[in-house]
Amino acid sequence: MKTKSPSATIEATRESDHPAVNDFTRVRQQTELLAVDLTAEDCMVQSMPDASPVKWHLAHTTWFWETFLLTPHLKGYKPLDADYRTLFNSYYNAVGDKPQRDSRGVFSRPSLDEIYAYRQYVDQFMLQLLHNDLPRDVADIVTLGLNHEQQHQELIVTDIKHGLWSNPLRPAYAERAITENGGLPSKQQWLEYGEGLHHIGHDGEGFAFDNELPRHKVYVEDFQLASRLITNAEYMQFILDGGYRRPELWLSDGWDAVRAHGWKAPLYWERSNDDVWWNYTAQGMRPVDLNEPVCHVSYFEADAFARWAGDRLPTEAEWEVAAAKAEPQGNFLESGNFHPLSTSHEGRDPDLVLQQMFGDCWEWTQSSYSPYPGYKPAEGALGEYNGKFMCNQYVLRGGSCASPQSHIRASYRNFFPAHARWQFSGIRLAKDVV
Amino acid sequence: MKTKSPSATIEATRESDHPAVNDFTRVRQQTELLAVDLTAEDCMVQSMPDASPVKWHLAHTTWFWETFLLTPHLKGYKPLDADYRTLFNSYYNAVGDKPQRDSRGVFSRPSLDEIYAYRQYVDQFMLQLLHNDLPRDVADIVTLGLNHEQQHQELIVTDIKHGLWSNPLRPAYAERAITENGGLPSKQQWLEYGEGLHHIGHDGEGFAFDNELPRHKVYVEDFQLASRLITNAEYMQFILDGGYRRPELWLSDGWDAVRAHGWKAPLYWERSNDDVWWNYTAQGMRPVDLNEPVCHVSYFEADAFARWAGDRLPTEAEWEVAAAKAEPQGNFLESGNFHPLSTSHEGRDPDLVLQQMFGDCWEWTQSSYSPYPGYKPAEGALGEYNGKFMCNQYVLRGGSCASPQSHIRASYRNFFPAHARWQFSGIRLAKDVV
Amino acid sequence: MKTKSPSATIEATRESDHPAVNDFTRVRQQTELLAVDLTAEDCMVQSMPDASPVKWHLAHTTWFWETFLLTPHLKGYKPLDADYRTLFNSYYNAVGDKPQRDSRGVFSRPSLDEIYAYRQYVDQFMLQLLHNDLPRDVADIVTLGLNHEQQHQELIVTDIKHGLWSNPLRPAYAERAITENGGLPSKQQWLEYGEGLHHIGHDGEGFAFDNELPRHKVYVEDFQLASRLITNAEYMQFILDGGYRRPELWLSDGWDAVRAHGWKAPLYWERSNDDVWWNYTAQGMRPVDLNEPVCHVSYFEADAFARWAGDRLPTEAEWEVAAAKAEPQGNFLESGNFHPLSTSHEGRDPDLVLQQMFGDCWEWTQSSYSPYPGYKPAEGALGEYNGKFMCNQYVLRGGSCASPQSHIRASYRNFFPAHARWQFSGIRLAKDVV
Amino acid sequence: MKTKSPSATIEATRESDHPAVNDFTRVRQQTELLAVDLTAEDCMVQSMPDASPVKWHLAHTTWFWETFLLTPHLKGYKPLDADYRTLFNSYYNAVGDKPQRDSRGVFSRPSLDEIYAYRQYVDQFMLQLLHNDLPRDVADIVTLGLNHEQQHQELIVTDIKHGLWSNPLRPAYAERAITENGGLPSKQQWLEYGEGLHHIGHDGEGFAFDNELPRHKVYVEDFQLASRLITNAEYMQFILDGGYRRPELWLSDGWDAVRAHGWKAPLYWERSNDDVWWNYTAQGMRPVDLNEPVCHVSYFEADAFARWAGDRLPTEAEWEVAAAKAEPQGNFLESGNFHPLSTSHEGRDPDLVLQQMFGDCWEWTQSSYSPYPGYKPAEGALGEYNGKFMCNQYVLRGGSCASPQSHIRASYRNFFPAHARWQFSGIRLAKDVV
Repeated sequence: MKTKSPSATIEATRESDHPAVNDFTRVRQQTELLAVDLTAEDCMVQSMPDASPVKWHLAHTTWFWETFLLTPHLKGYKPLDADYRTLFNSYYNAVGDKPQRDSRGVFSRPSLDEIYAYRQYVDQFMLQLLHNDLPRDVADIVTLGLNHEQQHQELIVTDIKHGLWSNPLRPAYAERAITENGGLPSKQQWLEYGEGLHHIGHDGEGFAFDNELPRHKVYVEDFQLASRLITNAEYMQFILDGGYRRPELWLSDGWDAVRAHGWKAPLYWERSNDDVWWNYTAQGMRPVDLNEPVCHVSYFEADAFARWAGDRLPTEAEWEVAAAKAEPQGNFLESGNFHPLSTSHEGRDPDLVLQQMFGDCWEWTQSSYSPYPGYKPAEGALGEYNGKFMCNQYVLRGGSCASPQSHIRASYRNFFPAHARWQFSGIRLAKDVV
Repeated sequence: MKTKSPSATIEATRESDHPAVNDFTRVRQQTELLAVDLTAEDCMVQSMPDASPVKWHLAHTTWFWETFLLTPHLKGYKPLDADYRTLFNSYYNAVGDKPQRDSRGVFSRPSLDEIYAYRQYVDQFMLQLLHNDLPRDVADIVTLGLNHEQQHQELIVTDIKHGLWSNPLRPAYAERAITENGGLPSKQQWLEYGEGLHHIGHDGEGFAFDNELPRHKVYVEDFQLASRLITNAEYMQFILDGGYRRPELWLSDGWDAVRAHGWKAPLYWERSNDDVWWNYTAQGMRPVDLNEPVCHVSYFEADAFARWAGDRLPTEAEWEVAAAKAEPQGNFLESGNFHPLSTSHEGRDPDLVLQQMFGDCWEWTQSSYSPYPGYKPAEGALGEYNGKFMCNQYVLRGGSCASPQSHIRASYRNFFPAHARWQFSGIRLAKDVV
Repeated sequence: MKTKSPSATIEATRESDHPAVNDFTRVRQQTELLAVDLTAEDCMVQSMPDASPVKWHLAHTTWFWETFLLTPHLKGYKPLDADYRTLFNSYYNAVGDKPQRDSRGVFSRPSLDEIYAYRQYVDQFMLQLLHNDLPRDVADIVTLGLNHEQQHQELIVTDIKHGLWSNPLRPAYAERAITENGGLPSKQQWLEYGEGLHHIGHDGEGFAFDNELPRHKVYVEDFQLASRLITNAEYMQFILDGGYRRPELWLSDGWDAVRAHGWKAPLYWERSNDDVWWNYTAQGMRPVDLNEPVCHVSYFEADAFARWAGDRLPTEAEWEVAAAKAEPQGNFLESGNFHPLSTSHEGRDPDLVLQQMFGDCWEWTQSSYSPYPGYKPAEGALGEYNGKFMCNQYVLRGGSCASPQSHIRASYRNFFPAHARWQFSGIRLAKDVV
Repeated sequence: MKTKSPSATIEATRESDHPAVNDFTRVRQQTELLAVDLTAEDCMVQSMPDASPVKWHLAHTTWFWETFLLTPHLKGYKPLDADYRTLFNSYYNAVGDKPQRDSRGVFSRPSLDEIYAYRQYVDQFMLQLLHNDLPRDVADIVTLGLNHEQQHQELIVTDIKHGLWSNPLRPAYAERAITENGGLPSKQQWLEYGEGLHHIGHDGEGFAFDNELPRHKVYVEDFQLASRLITNAEYMQFILDGGYRRPELWLSDGWDAVRAHGWKAPLYWERSNDDVWWNYTAQGMRPVDLNEPVCHVSYFEADAFARWAGDRLPTEAEWEVAAAKAEPQGNFLESGNFHPLSTSHEGRDPDLVLQQMFGDCWEWTQSSYSPYPGYKPAEGALGEYNGKFMCNQYVLRGGSCASPQSHIRASYRNFFPAHARWQFSGIRLAKDVV
C-alpha cells in the first residue's frame, strides 16, 4: 500500500517572497518526494546498524527543526509529542537520551502517517517562525537545518537502496528512473597542477559546515589528477588481475576486511551462474554497465585499486585545488537517476577536460578526516555535528548522484569509515610528478 | 494506518457441513483476528532473532498449506509466486533454501496487503481441496497444518508483545482486553500422587504431534504437586530475599545468564524511580498485580525459585500423571486476555483443588526435551517438525493464555531453551514425598 | 627444559599400613607422573577456555585438599600462600572469588617449581592429617578429594593433548606410548535386553558421586545394544556417504555447529594433500587406524552417525542395565596408551560378547544430565560439585583411556555439552526391539 | 626457575674493529638482557592479542636476520629449522603463511632454551656475514634489522608489563629498577613557534625508516607547545572533574570506548578500597606518583584531556618543528627505569625550557598516520614494514622510557590505534596563537 502524504501545509504554500520560506519549503518537499513511491513498510526497513529507516529520516529531520529552532526560538511553541525529543535524537548527547541506533527499524509507532502529521505540525510553526525577522544566529541555525535535511536526503537514497537490496526479491526503488546504458566514456587523461602554497577551506560566501573552516594555507607539491572517475571496465581489470586475492595490494586493515567479509567485487555486484556480473541499482538488477563509474567501493578498495594501477588517491587538498576552478555541476540527486553515469552523458563542452568532479560518485581521498588548523566547533549541542567524528574516517569529496546539487561545493568535506561501501563512493586517481 | 483484511474468501464462507472445511475456516480466521488491530508497520517488527514479524507468521502458515498440501496434492495448482517457496520457508532443509532467520524484519515486500492476497489465494484452493475426499495421509497433513497454524497464533501474540515492548512508547497490543486486577488467589496446597508404573504420551484419540508418541510406560515415585501456579507476590519474596544475587540458588549456566543479561526480575517488569514494579501487558504498562501468576520467567529462574523455596520443578511425567484427570479448560487465547489471571477468576467448582493446569502460563518441567522410547519422526520434510530440536531445550506443559484451547491436551509437549523468557512461561512446584 | 619434580615428600613415603595414606600417596604420585615429560612451558599452555594448563591442574587439586581438608580440619594449619585460595579456585562461589577461567594460561607465576613445592607442603600436612582417625564426614571428603584428583588426571591428559596439538609442530605428549596398529576388531553384534523395572544408580558399596544417587527404579523397554564401539572404518563410511553435508542426519543445533566450525571429521583428524587421513595422538601424528574405535566426536556427531546407521544412542539407563554385569576392566589410563584400541588388543575371553564397555572411549548416551529422583546435593561449597551443572549437558558412560581404572564403575556419570570433542568420546549404538 | 642464557657466541665476542659487528653484538645482547630476569614461563605469556610473548620476540627478531639476510645473502646457509620460517613470521604475506597472531602464547615448543640456541646459531652466521664487505643494499638490510630488533626491545618491555599485570599476583618485572618518587615537576610553560613553510622528515644522515621519507615542505601556522608532559597531578584533576563521565569531552569513538571498556583512569591504575590510586610499574604496585608524567593513556584520553584543558594535541609537523633543535636525550630504555620520571630528575640545564621531548612517554599527536608526499615503500617483503599500516592509526613522537636511545630521532614516527594504551604513551599539549 503506497502512502503519498507530502505535507499538505507545504503544498498549499505558494511561492513566497520570503527567500527563507522558499528555501525551507523546497527542501522539505524534496525530502518527501524521495519517499513518495515507498510504502509505510518500506519506510520502516533498517537493514544494518549504519543505515536508518526512511521513516526515521523523515522524523529526525523534523526533530531537528523542533529541537534547535522551535523549542528555543518560537515563543509558546509546544512540541507535538514530548516522547519524540528522545525517540528521534540521533547522537546529540547534550539533548539527552536516545534509543540504540540499531533499534530504529523496530519502531512501528509512531506510524508513517503520524510522522507526516508531525512534519506538517512542525512545518506550519516553522513557516510562522520564518516570516519573522530572525536574528543572525537563529537564521544561521535555519540554514544549518536546511543543510542537515539535505544530508538526510542523500541518506534516504543510500539507506533504502541497501534496505531493498537486503530483500531477496531485489525490488526497485525508482522504476521510473530512466538511466540508459552509457556510451563510451571519455579518454582518461592526467591533468597537471603546479606546487605552491594554496588556500583551501570555505571562502566565506554562502553556507559552509564548521569542518570546512577556517580557510587556511596548505603547501601542495606538483601533482597530477585523473580527468575522470574510474569506470567499471577499468575496475573489472583489477578484479580479473586477482585484485581481491593479492594481499600486497592492500592496506593491512583492508586485507583483513576482504577476508572477513569475503569481498570479491563492489557492493551490489552479483555474479550469476553463467558468469555475468549484475549490479543492483535504483531500477533493480541490471548487468554491470562497463562505461559507468565504479561505485560502492570502500576506501580500502579505492586504495588497493590505486596501488594496483601504480598510482594513488589524491589528498583532499589536491582535490580542492583542482576543483576550485570547476563548476559544481553534474549528475546530482535532482537528475532522478540515483546512479552514476558515463561521461558520455555529459552535455557539456567536450573540450572540458576535468570531468565528473561533482556528482556521480563521492571520491575517496587519502586524507584522514581531521580538524583544519584553528578549527572551532559550534557551542552547545550543535557542536556535536562534525568535530566529534574526526577519528578513523576518511574524507570524500565532490558529492554524488544522491546529493542535492545546492548542497555541494568545492570545499565540502564528507567522511566515512574506510570499510563503508553503501554510499555512492568511487575512485579518482592522482599521482606524483617525477 | 490500520489494515483490516480478513480473508474475504473465508468471510464469505458459510458454516459448511464439511467438518474439515469448518475447522480450516475457523483456524484461518482466528489467525487474522489476532492481527486485526495491527498496522502494516506493526506486522513488520522483528525485535529479536527468536521472534518473527506477524506478517511473516501470516505468510509462513500459508506457505505451509501451499508447500505440503496444494503443491503435492491439488492437481494443477500453481503457486501464486515462485519466490515465496524460499522466502517463507522457516527451517525445512528438505524444502530448500531459506533467508536468514534474523532478516525477516527487513522484508517490506511482499506487503501486508500482498500477504493477505496470498492467504486468500491459498484459502480458495484449500477449500477446493478440502471438499474432496482426502486419503488418510493427506487428511493427516491437513490436521497437522491446522495445528501448525495454531502454534503460530501463539507466536503472533508472544512476538508482537516483545516487538511493541521494544518500542520506548510501549504501545498496547489489545487495548480492549479487559483484564481487571484479580482477587486473592487460592491457598497453595500440596497434592500427593502415589508411585507406580504409569502410561504417558498421547492415547490415540484425536490429533497429537509425533513427539507425544508413542504412549509408553514410565515409573514415577511418590510425589507432590502444587495446587496452583506461583504468584507474583510469591516471586517478589524471592526477589526481595536476594534471589537474583545469590549464586548458590542457580544452575551454573543460569548464574552466567543472570550476570550476562543483568536479570533482576521477570521479563517485562520495570522498576520506576519511585520503586514501583510495573509490568508490560497486552494493555500496555500496568503495576505488577501480586495476585496473578508470575510469567515470562526462564527455566533458570523457575529452577532457582524452586531451589529457594526448598522444592523443585516437576518432571514432565509427573505433570502428565497429575494432568491426566484434569479437564483442559482455563484461560486460553480465546478469552482475549492475553495475560495470566489470578485463580480468583476461575468460575469453576471451588472444591477443585488442582488449578491452572491448563492455560494461563506454560509450566516449566525439569525434563529435557528428548524422544520417547520408540519415537519415530515423520518421513520427508515434515520429519523436521519436532525431532531435530530434541537437544538443549526443556519441556513446558499445559498451554498458556496465548494458546488456542483446542490446541492443548494433557500429553502436549512444548519446548524452549532454558534462557527463553518471551513465552508466557510460569512456575508450578513439585516435591518428593519423604 | 624438562622439569621432573615428583613430590619428594611422597617419594620418601614407604608403603604405609594406613590405607588412606596409601591411597592418597598413590593418587598424588599418579598425577605428577602424567606431567613428568612436560616442561614448565608445556604445563602453562591453555589452548582454549574449556581446557586448563597442566600447572593449574597440579595446583587446583592441591588447593582442594587445602581448602576442604587442611584449613577446616587440621588444627593450626596455615596455608602456604593466602593468594592461592582465590587463584586456584575453579568454580566454587561459596569459597569466594576466582580468576576468569580463560585467563589461567597467562599465569607464569607461581612457577611450576613453586607449584611442586605447594604440592609437597600440602602433602606433608595431609599425611599428618591422614594418620589420625578421621570422623566419617571428614574421611568422606578425603575420598571425594581422591576422586576429584583422579578427574583432573583425566583432564591433564585431554587438555595437554589439545594444547600440544594447537602448536603447528604437533609435538607428542608421550613418545614412549607404544600403541601399535590394532588388528581387525571383533564383529559387531546386537545384544538384546528385556524390558522391565530396573534399578540404576550406585548400590551403596564404595564411593560414588552424589549424582549417582539415589539408586532408584526406572522402567526400560526391550532394547538392543551393540557389542562394541564404532570403529574408524565404520565412521569413515559415514564421512564418505556425505555425513557432514546432509542436514537431515543432524539435530538442528548440531547442523549449526557443523557449519559454524566447518567440521568434516572428528577432532584431531587432518587430511593431507594426497588425501590420507591423519590422526593426532599421544605419539604425534599417525595415519588413522581403521581398526580403532572412533574418538573425539561430539554428541552431535554421535547422534548423526546413529541416525545415519538407522539406529540410535542408548539411554543412560539402558547402558547401566547392560553394564551392570560387565567387569570394569579395559584400556584405562594405567595402560599408558592414552589412546583407544581395537578390540583385538583385548586379552580377555573371546566368548565375551559385550566389549569395550569400560575404558577406551567415553560413550555418549542420549540422556540429558539431570538429577535422579530424590537427588540431594551435598551441603556447602561441595554441593557445587555436580548439581549446578545439570543443564544442557549429556551423559557419557564407561570411562576412557584417560580415566584411572579405580575411578570408574557402572553407575559413573560423566557429562559434557553436546558440542564438546576434546574428551576421549566415542560411539556405541543401541536400537529398539521391533 | 630462571633462565639466564645470553647468547654464548656473542658473549665471547670481543669488541671488534668492525663497526657493523659491534652494532650487531650490542643490539643482540641488549635484547637478551631485557629477558634475563624472566623465567621460561614468563617468556610464554601472551595476555592479549596485541601483545606477544617475550619468547616470540626473541625468536621473531632472529627469524628476521635469517629470512632477510642469511637465507638470501649468505652462501650455503641452512636454516636451523625449516618450520621456523612459518612459525615466527609476524605479518609478511610475501614470506608465506603465519600462525594466528593470538595463538603465540600457546607455543610451548620450541622451548626458550631452543630459542636461545636459535639465536646463537643465527648470531654465529650473522657475524660471519658481517665480516664481509657487504654491498650497499645488503648493508641497508642489516641496519634495518638492527632497528627492527630495537623496536621489539621496546615491545618486550611493554608486552611483559601487560602480561605480568594480568596475573592477580602483580609480580614486578624489574625489582632492581630503582626509580624513586620524583620531586616537583617544572612549571608548565607555553613555548611559541612562528608560522612558515618548514621541512619535516628525515634529512638524509644516518638511518631512517621509509615512513620518515621523503623530507618535504609543510606549511605550519603560529602555534604554542607545552614545555613538558602532562603530569599525573594534572590528569587527576581531569578525573576529579568528571572527565570520564562527560561525553562532550570525547570523540564519538572515544566515548564508545570509555563505555565499552569501563575506563575510569589510565591503564594500570587501580583504586584501593580506601580510595588510594595505585599504579602498576616495573617494580610492581606503587601509589600513583603525582609528579610523574601521566602514561598509558589512549589517543582518546589524550584528546579528551586536551579538550578539557581548552587546548589540543600538536600535529606531527608542529612537534617535529619544535623538536628539530632539541637534543634526543632523556629517560630511555638504557636508564633501566622502565617508567617515566618527573622533570625533577633531569640533570640538564635548568634554563632549558623544552623538556621531555625525548624518552619518558611517547607523545600522541593529532595526526593520522599517512604517507608523506612522494612516499615509496621498499620493494618486496620488506615493503610490508610500514606502508600497509597507514590507516586508522595515530602518530606518536619522541620515544619512551622503553625505547633504546639510539633508535629515536626527531623525525621518528611511531603509530598505534586510537584505543591502544599498553604502550608508554602520554600527553603534551599545544594550542593556536590567537
